[in-house]
Parts: sequence; structure tokens; C-alpha cells
Amino acid sequence: MTYGVALKLDHGLVFMTDTRTNAGLDNISTYKKMFTWVDEGESVVTILCAGNLATTQSVVSLIDERMKAPSERSPSILGLPSMFQVARLVGNTLKEVIAANAQAGQKADSAFNATIIVGGQVAGSEPRLFLVYPEGNFIEAGDDTPFFQIGETKYGRPILVRAFDRGMSFEAAAKLLLVSFDSTIKANLSVGLPLDMALYEAGSLKGGLTRRFEATDPYYHATSDGWGVALKAAFDHLPDVAL
Amino acid sequence: MTYGVALKLDHGLVFMTDTRTNAGLDNISTYKKMFTWVDEGESVVTILCAGNLATTQSVVSLIDERMKAPSERSPSILGLPSMFQVARLVGNTLKEVIAANAQAGQKADSAFNATIIVGGQVAGSEPRLFLVYPEGNFIEAGDDTPFFQIGETKYGRPILVRAFDRGMSFEAAAKLLLVSFDSTIKANLSVGLPLDMALYEAGSLKGGLTRRFEATDPYYHATSDGWGVALKAAFDHLPDVAL
Repeated sequence: MTYGVALKLDHGLVFMTDTRTNAGLDNISTYKKMFTWVDEGESVVTILCAGNLATTQSVVSLIDERMKAPSERSPSILGLPSMFQVARLVGNTLKEVIAANAQAGQKADSAFNATIIVGGQVAGSEPRLFLVYPEGNFIEAGDDTPFFQIGETKYGRPILVRAFDRGMSFEAAAKLLLVSFDSTIKANLSVGLPLDMALYEAGSLKGGLTRRFEATDPYYHATSDGWGVALKAAFDHLPDVAL
Repeated sequence: MTYGVALKLDHGLVFMTDTRTNAGLDNISTYKKMFTWVDEGESVVTILCAGNLATTQSVVSLIDERMKAPSERSPSILGLPSMFQVARLVGNTLKEVIAANAQAGQKADSAFNATIIVGGQVAGSEPRLFLVYPEGNFIEAGDDTPFFQIGETKYGRPILVRAFDRGMSFEAAAKLLLVSFDSTIKANLSVGLPLDMALYEAGSLKGGLTRRFEATDPYYHATSDGWGVALKAAFDHLPDVAL
């Protein structure tokens, strides 16, 4: 499993994902699931991947043009005139990879499917955020639901629904995501630390701050512990049911 | 879907379940999913059902001995010497109903499966709580995990994990369950009001307080609104991430 979230704020975009992959409970590894392409002043694209690792790695390699020699690469994802075109490119690449793998037939338990969040900005337009399905089609985050979750979405959703506010600062958004990830990590073994976070400041058209929260990260632990205490206090403060 | 929870407290047992059933999104109804049998001074048994409604209603009817004339009924679930035997009876009945329905083959999209929480007390022993699987086998709530959830368990789990305490009062437990149900109802359309709650006081060996929270219940709304505010305040109070 995986847990990934992207928020569309007034200030820009915030991405967070865990790094645990698993093939069964007895075979877990750590892999990056967040990738960013930057053409400073022109376009910035970040993707979060959930699903079959062979599929998503293949998609990333194709977008990166890793079939070419390193010196000849110029990822086509960066030359496009709009984020809609970027989402189309990711969707088509994803669909092709799944179709190519499926030709040989399904041998393992897990499907070849994957879901990808695509967010970023192209010069001349606003930042945009898309959720791309394994079929290659996609939806865009709107004003009513300005965030997307992929993977194990349920445990971390209640706090997002309650505390998300598109006017919030990057600092508050990072805190919100840590709380949402903490609830998920406490409940699902297949979502695990370290966590990768990336911020993109609207209009900057350059790579933003990235941060990895390791299992030993003091802020992560302060948030997790502090949230437990705060939640308990909030709960105790609610009036009991009169029975 | 369904959401049902049973807590094993030092003071006794607390059960809560929603009442929404659905066959697709366009066909929803309200049905009781909680049933209690009482033989005062001897034994008290409550069950919560999740899964195929035809299966669970059939199980309840068989336990109720509704194949006999009303005057001849004396539910065998009440004459048993231990809660372990009660759980076995429920498990065997459930397994038989599923097997009988499956004989004719599966025609609809949904499976015949169901999961049942069984809790109660038989004179001479402590209160006990079991989770019965469609295969008829079951597990018992222990000291480390003294509660069970069935149905749509994920959205409401984080607050249970954080705030449950087996020494808590019935009033606090009712509040905890309302918060857990509120998080679930906000996220999954197939879990809906009204909610049924039942309390069983350890050692009482008689039917305890029951309460139905309707959609208009002022306490339910006070809890839901109050929890939103309290959660937001708790979140704002956590230190932001220093970026």
C-alpha cells in the first residue's frame, strides 16, 4: 500500500507521500514515490504514485526518457503548453505501461494498476492538480475538493475534511499532513516512514522546498505525541452524553 | 455497508451500530442491526450484524426460533452455560445460513457473507465479547484490544485508538462512539443515522439502557459540531512545522 496526499492551497501546492512498498507482509522496502521535473521559469511538475511499483517506476522512466542516453534526455513532460497536456501525457504513459504488462497475462496476486497525482504549474497559467486513473483518464481538483488522496486514504481523511483550509500557510499544511499520515501509519502496516514532502509556491516556477521526515525526525514525533494529547484533551472537553 | 462497534469496559459492554442498509447507491433503507436476548438473572446476549441483510436476518430469526409458533419459542441462545457456547451457536448458525444460500449459486453482485459481534454475560462468568466470521469461527476481545469494529471500520478507528480507555464511564464511551460514528458518516454515504446504542452493566444480568440517536437528535448534533470545533482548536494548538 501507499498513502499520498496533494493539497491545492492559495499559496501553492503541497505534496506528501510515504515510502513503503510491500509485496505481501513479509517483503517490505523503501522506495521514493514522489518525482519532480523543473524547467525554471517555464514549468514545474510533481507526481505522486500509488499502486504497482513496476508500473509506476516504468512510467517515471518513460517520462524521464531513460531509454535515451543521459546526454540526450530532455523530458517531454517539461515542454508542454499546459498542465492539462501534462496530465494527458502521464495518463497515456500510465495506460500504455499497464497494457504492455497485461499482454503477458497476470501471474502474480497483485494487479498492474496504479494511480498518480499530478500537480504543478506552466508559465502563463495557475497551478493545477490532477488525479490520473489507471485507464489514463483524470479529474482535476476544484474549489469544493481542493485535495487528492491516493492509496490508503480512509484513516487520514477525517482530519483533512475537518481542518483543511485553502488559505492555510505551508507550515500549517505540513502539520495537517503529518497528522493525517500519523493516523494512517498507526493503523496500516503497509504505510510507513520516512515521509517525503514537497512544497511548490504558486507563481515561482522553480523547485520548492523538499523535506524527508525520517523515523527519528523529532518534529514528526512531537506532532504524533502532541496530537495524541491534544485529541484526548479535545475529546475530554466535549460534554458527555446524558444517559 | 454498516458501521458497528462494541467496547468492553471495566463497567460492562457498550454497543453501537448504524441502521442504513443499501443495495447499490440508489436503494437504501433503514433496518435494525442490533438484537438483544435477556433471561434475567441468567444471561444477556447482544449481537451486532454487518453484511448481507438476508443472511443476518435469517440468522436472527433462527436464533429467535421463529420457525416455531410464538408460544413455543424459547431461544436456545439463552440456555447455554457460557458465552463461548453462545459464540459457537451464532457462528454455526451463520455458517449454515451462508452455505444454504450459496447452494443455489450467487446471482447478485453482493456476496452472502456477514460478520457478527456477539457480547454478553452468562451467570457465573465475566462479560465477554466475540467477533464471529462468516466461516463460523470467532475471536475474543482481550486486554490489549478490548473492542471490535465491523463494516466500514477505517474512518472511525483513529479516535478509538487514541481515546479508548477501558476504565471510562458509559457516558464517556457513548461520546467516544458518537465521535467515531460521526467521522464515518461524514465520509461514507452507506453509513447513516439513526444510530442504535445499548449498554450492558457488568454483573447486572438484565437488559441495560438502550437509546436511538435520530437524525434530529440534539446531542448527536452537539457532539458533531463540538467535535469539529474541538478538533480544529487542537490542531491549531499544535506547533507548526518549522520549514
